[in-house]
Amino acid sequence: MYAAAVIVAWAVAGSGGVTVACILVAAGTGERLGVGRPKALVEVGGTPIVRRAAEAVAASGVVQHLVVAAPTWLGNHVGRLCALPAFDGRDQLVVVSGGLTRQQSVEGALTGTPAEADVVLVHDAARCFAPPALIAQVVAAVRAGAYAVVPAVPVVDTLVEVDEPGSTVVGTPDRSRLRAVQTPQGFRRQVLVDAHLAATRRGDQDATDDAGLVRRLGVKVHVIHGADEAFKITTPQDLERAEALLAAGRLR
Amino acid sequence: MYAAAVIVAWAVAGSGGVTVACILVAAGTGERLGVGRPKALVEVGGTPIVRRAAEAVAASGVVQHLVVAAPTWLGNHVGRLCALPAFDGRDQLVVVSGGLTRQQSVEGALTGTPAEADVVLVHDAARCFAPPALIAQVVAAVRAGAYAVVPAVPVVDTLVEVDEPGSTVVGTPDRSRLRAVQTPQGFRRQVLVDAHLAATRRGDQDATDDAGLVRRLGVKVHVIHGADEAFKITTPQDLERAEALLAAGRLR
Repeated sequence: MYAAAVIVAWAVAGSGGVTVACILVAAGTGERLGVGRPKALVEVGGTPIVRRAAEAVAASGVVQHLVVAAPTWLGNHVGRLCALPAFDGRDQLVVVSGGLTRQQSVEGALTGTPAEADVVLVHDAARCFAPPALIAQVVAAVRAGAYAVVPAVPVVDTLVEVDEPGSTVVGTPDRSRLRAVQTPQGFRRQVLVDAHLAATRRGDQDATDDAGLVRRLGVKVHVIHGADEAFKITTPQDLERAEALLAAGRLR
Repeated sequence: MYAAAVIVAWAVAGSGGVTVACILVAAGTGERLGVGRPKALVEVGGTPIVRRAAEAVAASGVVQHLVVAAPTWLGNHVGRLCALPAFDGRDQLVVVSGGLTRQQSVEGALTGTPAEADVVLVHDAARCFAPPALIAQVVAAVRAGAYAVVPAVPVVDTLVEVDEPGSTVVGTPDRSRLRAVQTPQGFRRQVLVDAHLAATRRGDQDATDDAGLVRRLGVKVHVIHGADEAFKITTPQDLERAEALLAAGRLR
């Protein structure tokens, strides 16, 4: 019943073209990076990651609205950093206050997406090197009919399952069936709104995976090939790696 | 019954000190690295990775025998690269021909470990920056009573389980219970020998995880904290990362 309702809404919207909004989650403290500033403002090659991420979204050419979730006291500054020509029009750039958790930040940002947006991307600013082509592919997959799309890459490590204290191996998952999920993830807007409403009703507050919330609604989540460049900058090592790859001309 | 027999053998050996052999798997083609030479000879900071790995094993101060599995036609060259003062004595350095698979290489190398070795490490040359302290910790854990020890690190990515074609999410494993396994892995020698014999009897030829083989015997595999530096060099990006971290003074 849910699925049918969405399909009808989609068909109607589709007749007038598709509007895409991208939520950029940039509210992290950057604690694990240990550089003494909020994550959004951490620089790679002299450019703050939130700016790099916004540039890639603009370069994809398929996103009309950018909604950035940033720490409240940084809102104005982050707004200036993301003020790109692609988002120059009325309502094209919105900065909302990030929540205490990623889930709260995405929820808040969802209220900042325009009602006419049919497709909503959720993207981590910390994956600022996700290529514009990947962003366009996620949008294309949603436009082609998917309710939810995640980019993902194969797992290269041998994984084991451990017991509660983490001191003994209790199993070996089949890694050929596992993928590491990246962002941007793409959703038909109503699906993402419903998933977050359902999460809030359940009392969830700290969901880190939007596609996971959508799956709990019984909605099928499609997987497309991710990109090596879409790695997440979390640790000081990630930051060094990004600087090194950028210096070597391997990242834009 | 199996466990009891091992314990008795161990107690006897323990009275005369513990001898440790390290199998260094360096038989890979290096195809995925795309540098046009066997993986063992790929250089980081001007030093072949097999030499770097051997140096770290020597620096651990806890390994008396090094058994390197290398491509047959490279045996002499690899032997010279691994000829370190720590392995200067009689039978302290052996180079064996690598097999067609990792499992065959380890099996072949096992026959090259001296009978008096109580503890056998299995280490990938491609993890050449695994710190000497980690190598020592693995040995210490086996000496403290474990039959099998693997170093492992938390999984940072959000993982999903996909269907057979890899196009749809079918599950979300609990990543808090997952670890990415590294090397060196440490074993009481007889446990590893028995695990490989059992694998061969089953017809397995391409097992990539020694601890997994040991677990199939019903032997408990202990997990200790791995090290970020023990990452595996597999792709050109890994190689660039290694060069960059080395240049930045973050690797020895």
